Amino acid sequence: MQMMPQMGYDRAITVFSPDGRLFQVEYAREAVKRGTTAVGIKVKSGVVLLVDKRVTSRLLEAASIEKIFQIDEHIGVATSGLVADARFLVDRGRIEAQINRVVYDEAIGVEILAKKICDFKQNYTQYGGVRPFGTALLIAGVDRKEPRLFETDPSGALLEYKATAIGAGRAEVMEHFEANYAEDISMDDAIHLGLDILYTITEGRFDADTIEVGVIEVETKKFRMLDPDELGGYLQTIRERHASEDEEGEEET
Amino acid sequence: MQMMPQMGYDRAITVFSPDGRLFQVEYAREAVKRGTTAVGIKVKSGVVLLVDKRVTSRLLEAASIEKIFQIDEHIGVATSGLVADARFLVDRGRIEAQINRVVYDEAIGVEILAKKICDFKQNYTQYGGVRPFGTALLIAGVDRKEPRLFETDPSGALLEYKATAIGAGRAEVMEHFEANYAEDISMDDAIHLGLDILYTITEGRFDADTIEVGVIEVETKKFRMLDPDELGGYLQTIRERHASEDEEGEEET
Amino acid sequence: MQMMPQMGYDRAITVFSPDGRLFQVEYAREAVKRGTTAVGIKVKSGVVLLVDKRVTSRLLEAASIEKIFQIDEHIGVATSGLVADARFLVDRGRIEAQINRVVYDEAIGVEILAKKICDFKQNYTQYGGVRPFGTALLIAGVDRKEPRLFETDPSGALLEYKATAIGAGRAEVMEHFEANYAEDISMDDAIHLGLDILYTITEGRFDADTIEVGVIEVETKKFRMLDPDELGGYLQTIRERHASEDEEGEEET
Amino acid sequence: MQMMPQMGYDRAITVFSPDGRLFQVEYAREAVKRGTTAVGIKVKSGVVLLVDKRVTSRLLEAASIEKIFQIDEHIGVATSGLVADARFLVDRGRIEAQINRVVYDEAIGVEILAKKICDFKQNYTQYGGVRPFGTALLIAGVDRKEPRLFETDPSGALLEYKATAIGAGRAEVMEHFEANYAEDISMDDAIHLGLDILYTITEGRFDADTIEVGVIEVETKKFRMLDPDELGGYLQTIRERHASEDEEGEEET
Amino acid sequence: MQMMPQMGYDRAITVFSPDGRLFQVEYAREAVKRGTTAVGIKVKSGVVLLVDKRVTSRLLEAASIEKIFQIDEHIGVATSGLVADARFLVDRGRIEAQINRVVYDEAIGVEILAKKICDFKQNYTQYGGVRPFGTALLIAGVDRKEPRLFETDPSGALLEYKATAIGAGRAEVMEHFEANYAEDISMDDAIHLGLDILYTITEGRFDADTIEVGVIEVETKKFRMLDPDELGGYLQTIRERHASEDEEGEEET
Amino acid sequence: MQMMPQMGYDRAITVFSPDGRLFQVEYAREAVKRGTTAVGIKVKSGVVLLVDKRVTSRLLEAASIEKIFQIDEHIGVATSGLVADARFLVDRGRIEAQINRVVYDEAIGVEILAKKICDFKQNYTQYGGVRPFGTALLIAGVDRKEPRLFETDPSGALLEYKATAIGAGRAEVMEHFEANYAEDISMDDAIHLGLDILYTITEGRFDADTIEVGVIEVETKKFRMLDPDELGGYLQTIRERHASEDEEGEEET
Amino acid sequence: MQMMPQMGYDRAITVFSPDGRLFQVEYAREAVKRGTTAVGIKVKSGVVLLVDKRVTSRLLEAASIEKIFQIDEHIGVATSGLVADARFLVDRGRIEAQINRVVYDEAIGVEILAKKICDFKQNYTQYGGVRPFGTALLIAGVDRKEPRLFETDPSGALLEYKATAIGAGRAEVMEHFEANYAEDISMDDAIHLGLDILYTITEGRFDADTIEVGVIEVETKKFRMLDPDELGGYLQTIRERHASEDEEGEEET
Repeated sequence: MQMMPQMGYDRAITVFSPDGRLFQVEYAREAVKRGTTAVGIKVKSGVVLLVDKRVTSRLLEAASIEKIFQIDEHIGVATSGLVADARFLVDRGRIEAQINRVVYDEAIGVEILAKKICDFKQNYTQYGGVRPFGTALLIAGVDRKEPRLFETDPSGALLEYKATAIGAGRAEVMEHFEANYAEDISMDDAIHLGLDILYTITEGRFDADTIEVGVIEVETKKFRMLDPDELGGYLQTIRERHASEDEEGEEET
Repeated sequence: MQMMPQMGYDRAITVFSPDGRLFQVEYAREAVKRGTTAVGIKVKSGVVLLVDKRVTSRLLEAASIEKIFQIDEHIGVATSGLVADARFLVDRGRIEAQINRVVYDEAIGVEILAKKICDFKQNYTQYGGVRPFGTALLIAGVDRKEPRLFETDPSGALLEYKATAIGAGRAEVMEHFEANYAEDISMDDAIHLGLDILYTITEGRFDADTIEVGVIEVETKKFRMLDPDELGGYLQTIRERHASEDEEGEEET
Repeated sequence: MQMMPQMGYDRAITVFSPDGRLFQVEYAREAVKRGTTAVGIKVKSGVVLLVDKRVTSRLLEAASIEKIFQIDEHIGVATSGLVADARFLVDRGRIEAQINRVVYDEAIGVEILAKKICDFKQNYTQYGGVRPFGTALLIAGVDRKEPRLFETDPSGALLEYKATAIGAGRAEVMEHFEANYAEDISMDDAIHLGLDILYTITEGRFDADTIEVGVIEVETKKFRMLDPDELGGYLQTIRERHASEDEEGEEET
Repeated sequence: MQMMPQMGYDRAITVFSPDGRLFQVEYAREAVKRGTTAVGIKVKSGVVLLVDKRVTSRLLEAASIEKIFQIDEHIGVATSGLVADARFLVDRGRIEAQINRVVYDEAIGVEILAKKICDFKQNYTQYGGVRPFGTALLIAGVDRKEPRLFETDPSGALLEYKATAIGAGRAEVMEHFEANYAEDISMDDAIHLGLDILYTITEGRFDADTIEVGVIEVETKKFRMLDPDELGGYLQTIRERHASEDEEGEEET
Repeated sequence: MQMMPQMGYDRAITVFSPDGRLFQVEYAREAVKRGTTAVGIKVKSGVVLLVDKRVTSRLLEAASIEKIFQIDEHIGVATSGLVADARFLVDRGRIEAQINRVVYDEAIGVEILAKKICDFKQNYTQYGGVRPFGTALLIAGVDRKEPRLFETDPSGALLEYKATAIGAGRAEVMEHFEANYAEDISMDDAIHLGLDILYTITEGRFDADTIEVGVIEVETKKFRMLDPDELGGYLQTIRERHASEDEEGEEET
Repeated sequence: MQMMPQMGYDRAITVFSPDGRLFQVEYAREAVKRGTTAVGIKVKSGVVLLVDKRVTSRLLEAASIEKIFQIDEHIGVATSGLVADARFLVDRGRIEAQINRVVYDEAIGVEILAKKICDFKQNYTQYGGVRPFGTALLIAGVDRKEPRLFETDPSGALLEYKATAIGAGRAEVMEHFEANYAEDISMDDAIHLGLDILYTITEGRFDADTIEVGVIEVETKKFRMLDPDELGGYLQTIRERHASEDEEGEEET
Repeated sequence: MQMMPQMGYDRAITVFSPDGRLFQVEYAREAVKRGTTAVGIKVKSGVVLLVDKRVTSRLLEAASIEKIFQIDEHIGVATSGLVADARFLVDRGRIEAQINRVVYDEAIGVEILAKKICDFKQNYTQYGGVRPFGTALLIAGVDRKEPRLFETDPSGALLEYKATAIGAGRAEVMEHFEANYAEDISMDDAIHLGLDILYTITEGRFDADTIEVGVIEVETKKFRMLDPDELGGYLQTIRERHASEDEEGEEET
């Protein structure tokens, strides 16, 4: 009975509730909150995106769970929420990037691309006959000499972060960042920081198959995924560190 | 149960309630009331727009929270409410301004631009399959030798003010203005007046990163954002003034 | 509970209620009843339109609250109800007037213009996907040598009056007119009559800033707004008259 | 509670109720029943249409309440119900008449015109996204040497009458006709008969301003409105007759 | 309360109820059941259609109540139900007949025409945004040397009958036919049979004005309406027969 | 009250219920279950379709109740459910067959035709603004040297059977087939088997007028309806067999 | 009563529920869960798809129940859920494969095809006026030298598996695979593994008619269905194995 008053506000098209909220957009945000955790960290020398793919079965080809996508040479995105919606937005982003190359004969700016994706998302919150996208994106890239890290949500809102996260583990990750993030660390340290957080969130259940890491450095301006070997090295370090911490913890007890 | 009678009036398209109100428009106004506070002050020599960006995390790039936008050389707008809707309206305004330059070979009048944005908004309150915009705008500019300051709301209504505010702090700001506003103060004093109000509203939690200030002067007819240094100077003055007041207050006790 | 039977008649499109009324149109009339009071008086030598702009804050530029609009050289309208809807209808009227000049090379007849606006309004009460206009208009002009004064409502109905009013004060004004209106008074007396009524309605809270007066005389066939000085003179007379009346009233007691 | 079962049948589009009625059409008929009374009388030598314009205020220009319209030289219609809908249908009829003149180079037949208007009305009862017309029409004209008098209702049904009425007074008028109508009276007597009925219905509250009378005679085949003088003459006769009847009535008592 | 479960099935478009019925179609059939009674009788030498026009007022021009229409030289239809819907279908049938003449240079087959009208009707039961036709038709004609008599209903179903009826009196007529119909009677006897039934149904309240009779004979292949004199002769016979029966009945008592 | 939970799933367009069913499709199946019984039997040498036309009145021309239709020279279909929907699908099938002849210059395959009709039906279960077809079909034909017998239902599902039935008597017929069907019987025996079943279902109330039988043999590849004489012969055999069985039954008692 | 809160989220178009789920998509998944079980196993040398066709009547032509379809020479799909929806998607897949051959003159990649089908499915979850597809697919093929096995669901999500299942028996099969699957077994063993699982699920009720098996080997890159003889051999082995197991089991007891 308690839910009946909402009946009028969340149907058919995205309309306002009496307190000025767009229910369909807020419900779409819930879809994101139930998604896998994606983390983005921006440092002076570049940006790193990390995703826990939440592989739950050994029968699954972990590689088929794509959560980080390359949009253009210099831009990558990490997604959380409805995977089919994410693929749709990634395709849209790639098209925008290509159009920019064809029309202006140069790579699209990271912020411009982010805004175009957000404008596209906004449209799905204002017109009838569609629902909002149930997907958030972290957009990482380099504009001229600047590393950039944007976050979009189902409303089409756009914010730039130094470090942020989307998906189920967002609150925990942000708390961690508030305490431990520093802008002037190296890319290497940034990757370690990100993996460290994912280690905590997944309670140590991860390996090179279930984690995806994408990086872009200011110097190269090329977005690339870490290959299994590279990633394996980082994971080894994290595991060792935690193992010794646990030992210490045990010793302390 | 008490809300059931409203069920019929706020769905699908913007229809009238039995007492002649458009619920979807009023609900959209609630979205504005929950937005960040934007303040506009018009004086003889120009107009100033000030916004508290409500930065809540050190991880956020405050610069990415754009609340004041330049529409044309001589026009700027401050927004409050749904940010993606605001971006849509800002784009619309820029297009109208460009069209005017192309068709009439001159800059668009501030009032004409404001009316065009409002007509656009009105359409979203009368036709089916869309929702109204959840955004209010303060539009500042100079028409010939006159400073102008308009406020629009989700209905498409348009009013010109000497000083006004939109967003969460509106009531408090307006009360302040009724008591303290004078039309013949200098731009400098206007900026101080605006910052003073924001200082009160934010309970002193602000700095050059979380405040945006845009000004346009009759003499130059150029809208520009204060740069961090300029803004820093003003903020310093405000802080000092309040500090001494607090001291006085303490002394008085 | 008591309102539930109406649920079926006022949604989505303008449909008939069991007793043959169009609810959405009647609700739109409520929007007009909540609007500012506009008064029209037709005399032998012309027509006068008067509006109380209901200015509630000294921060508001009273001049920006337009309630009387010129449609063509010889036609003006006063509006009440939703201001954005009014602007839309005014634009429509101007376009119709221009079309007439282009197509027939002569000024549009006042009655023809009024009918065109009403046909436009009627359409918004019969087709789906739109709502009726929440605005009434008083249309004043001169056809050949005849002064004309029309009133339209949200249904698209059209009536010609000798003297009439729309908006919140309608009932009070009409009562006043039934008792005091005479067709053969001068324009000057008509303006005094109108202001007298607004004085009563606003309980004397008015000045040249909060009142708009538009006149068209049979002789000139030009619609024009009274300028502040002219209007000031009239207001002075009204205030003096009421002051002396009050004195007399007091003396009498 | 008692009205809830109807909720399903009268919304959005004109659908059938369980007993095979079209509610929206029946509700539109209610709009007609609340309209002013229009009377049509066909005699050998022509047809007369009479309307009580129900003028309620001395401030209203009675002439602006048009209830009888000329469609073509040889056809006139009297309307009852929603006035804006009536104007729409009248315009439609005029267009059909003009088209006939252009395409066939001759005046449209009265019955053909009546059918075209009815087909138009029927469409508004079968397709979604519109409501039926809330207007009935009496259509009077001369086909070759025959006087014709048609009545249409919101369903698009068409009937020819010797004498009939639409609007609030229909039942009373029809009863009167059943008793007093004769086909072979003169036009003059027909006008007297009609005015007599209106006198009764309005309880004698009428004059040349509040009554409209249109006639078409077989001989001339021209539809025309009675001018004030002509009408005044007839009214005088009616008043005298009733006055003497009242006297007699009083004497008899 | 008892009707609430149906709320979901009869709105907006023609959908299935849980037991596989199309409510809107069944409700449309109710509209037919409330219509005037139309009777069709097929004999070896032709087909006769008879309709009781149910004239209720002496003020009505009985001739204007058309219930039997000619579609083409060799085809006529009798209708029952919503009269405006019937007119629409008759127009449609005439167009189909004309198209056939233009395209194939020959008269359309009766069965082909009947199927085309039924296909048209079926469409109005399957697509959204329209309601089914509230009209049944009896279609009479001659295909090559065969007399044909078809009946359609609002669903678009098509059946051929030897003798049948639609409208309010259907059940009573069919009962009569089951007992009294024979295929090898003459046209004259068929007409008498039909009038006899109408006499019973109307309790003897009929004359040449309130009855319409159309016939088509195999020999001529021309559909034609009986003229008043012809019809008068038949009616006389029927009246006399019933009068003598009544006398006999009285004598018997 | 018990039906209310279904209110949300069966309206407007065909949507899924919480347990993954398409209500509108299932309700359409109910329309089929209420239809006349159609039977199909495939044997080595061909296919036979039999329908009980359920003729309920001697006034009805049994021949006009078409339940078996020829689609192309080598394909016939038997239908059950809404007859107007069936006619629509039959027309569609004929068009597909003709297109195949025009485009590929050869007769359409039975399976291809069946799939095309089913794809068409599926579309009416997935898109808004339409309802599913309330008709099932048995499609019989010969592909190369193979007899084929397909059954479609309102969902657009397609199955091939050795022997099957649709309509009201389906369950009873299928039970009969499970016990008595054999693939290697002759066409003659197949026809006897089918008639035997219809005899049982109709409790012996049938004759050459109320039964339709269509056959296609592998040898000829021509679909044809049994003519009255042929059919009469088969019926005679069935009646005699049942008569003797009944006698035996009686004797046994 | 308990279901009423859901009324608002599952109608008309696919909208979000308060916890961020798309009800229509989840209900469509239920349609899949009620479907027949389809199994896919990928090994080093190829992929095998197996389906239990759940044949319930000896009258049904088991061959007509197609659950495995060839899309292109090198790609096959197994389906579960609504069969008419499956056929639609299979057709779509074939068209995409053909387009690729025409446009790029080469066979489409398995993953590209899978993504195109999924994008198509996603569209049916975001736009109004349609419902999602009630079908899951297993897509098997060889990309260059790699065997691929994808699974799609009604949301348009896409995952690659080593071994997986869709339909009613999914949970049971997956449990079996978690325990018994190994990637390096031979194709022969993979087929045995799959049949073994179907044997268990169907409780041994299966034969060459009710099971469909499709295979593609890396070496040949040709997708093909096992023919009855081949399949018969495999089934014999399975039956014997289970028989001996049962015996052993019995012996053990």
